[in-house]
Amino acid sequence: MKKSLYRLVAAFLLLAALTLTGCAQDRQPEELKDKSRPEGTVFQVSTINALMQGLYDGEITCGELKTQGDLGVGTFDGLDGEMVVVDGKVLQVKADGTVLPVPDGEKIPFATVVFFKADQSQMVKEVAGYGHLQELLDGLVANRNQFYAIRIDGDFAYVKTRSVAEQVKPYPTLAEATKNQSVFEMQDVKGSVIGFYCPPYVQGLNVPGYHLHFVTEDLKKGGHLLECNLLEGTVQMDIIPEFHMVLPGSNDFARANLTTDNEADLKRIESN
Amino acid sequence: MKKSLYRLVAAFLLLAALTLTGCAQDRQPEELKDKSRPEGTVFQVSTINALMQGLYDGEITCGELKTQGDLGVGTFDGLDGEMVVVDGKVLQVKADGTVLPVPDGEKIPFATVVFFKADQSQMVKEVAGYGHLQELLDGLVANRNQFYAIRIDGDFAYVKTRSVAEQVKPYPTLAEATKNQSVFEMQDVKGSVIGFYCPPYVQGLNVPGYHLHFVTEDLKKGGHLLECNLLEGTVQMDIIPEFHMVLPGSNDFARANLTTDNEADLKRIESN
Repeated sequence: MKKSLYRLVAAFLLLAALTLTGCAQDRQPEELKDKSRPEGTVFQVSTINALMQGLYDGEITCGELKTQGDLGVGTFDGLDGEMVVVDGKVLQVKADGTVLPVPDGEKIPFATVVFFKADQSQMVKEVAGYGHLQELLDGLVANRNQFYAIRIDGDFAYVKTRSVAEQVKPYPTLAEATKNQSVFEMQDVKGSVIGFYCPPYVQGLNVPGYHLHFVTEDLKKGGHLLECNLLEGTVQMDIIPEFHMVLPGSNDFARANLTTDNEADLKRIESN
Repeated sequence: MKKSLYRLVAAFLLLAALTLTGCAQDRQPEELKDKSRPEGTVFQVSTINALMQGLYDGEITCGELKTQGDLGVGTFDGLDGEMVVVDGKVLQVKADGTVLPVPDGEKIPFATVVFFKADQSQMVKEVAGYGHLQELLDGLVANRNQFYAIRIDGDFAYVKTRSVAEQVKPYPTLAEATKNQSVFEMQDVKGSVIGFYCPPYVQGLNVPGYHLHFVTEDLKKGGHLLECNLLEGTVQMDIIPEFHMVLPGSNDFARANLTTDNEADLKRIESN
């Protein structure tokens, strides 16, 4: 009996050793973690040009997306509303203005997320208008060739957002779909602007410059940010030196012309 | 004594359980491993436009690169030769024609690697010329919007390659540097063509279309592939649905204009 117990202990020792070895192989080696470099990865599903051409079929699930980031922006299967990811919660701002928590099984055609950890933080006051906000952010983006995740928490005198309704097949282009966008206006709300600065060379893959969404503190209103007047708040920025993109496996993606210059269309879709 | 052994067994059970739990968190969740999708990630250091503008300072080490792939192409600190990664070995084809194994500490400014696992394989015969090879590969790249890693092992009647010498600061552009390239010709060699097909929308980030290097079976000759005549061999292709890019943290990278259209220059540099 005693002998068999010793065998059992030996077996568990072996199991523990093998498991630990397996674990170590899955991890990044220590040498990759150079502390002098900023850390983090922008995780992206599909490309902006694919979305602009009407490729709205979901590619990965919301549950999968949450394993890649806790802050970000995107949209849903069939272009069913605007996505805001904040504090690990994935929220859907529908075209009727309601904001819903998103089940893990929901499919996502395009999104950009990151595990947010601020590298810089700044108190700001009286940022009157989107143009002013952009100038303020321009002053904080010291390196135009890197990615930045952005989070601005504060008191807003005014916020204007939009969302889009679920589309039916054959899907229209994004330029067509946003012609029927819903626009929401909010006065005197606490909330968070969430999004990214992407470098100019990602044209075709993501939105060069700023791509910002908004959600109120009570998570009841939000959308793609079109205009705002920030009374006071805190701007946090996370510089991100790595970029990871997952490509759709669909036939639609395989057949799409993804090199079209959509710059003018994109500018119109993204701004007020 | 018996009691303490039982306690030991219980402790190991707990350890094993905790270790397995820790392991599971590091791994991709099962739901991410949709078996209907191809697998793998193209791992890239820096961008092709940064390299073209003369940003030759190494960013990551060879040891780091090897944790991200076992097949690929690239170059070295100061543009010191052509890189071929084959079967996990990182090789440096110097401008004098020698091929050296690369120490793990060597720095790398630009490279593209993948853990290669062929999705398709085809025997081929009498592929006379680079143009013919390209046509053959075109027939195998079923999805022009995905990445493919390529490996062709075979008997070559003729191979023409090039390499470049280590540059000194202030670094010239890649177009300038390759004007003084060394060209090598080989007759009747066994070897491997190694490289990638990248989709057109990666323009500015990587080389759209084919980017192929070569190394002989005895690992004694090689370089950037300019021309070839393949008698017979096997073409293996690995379709890769994910793309991961690590950006340099240098001031040179921060200041560079990375959106220049270098298409004509790139074509001249990459081809015969």
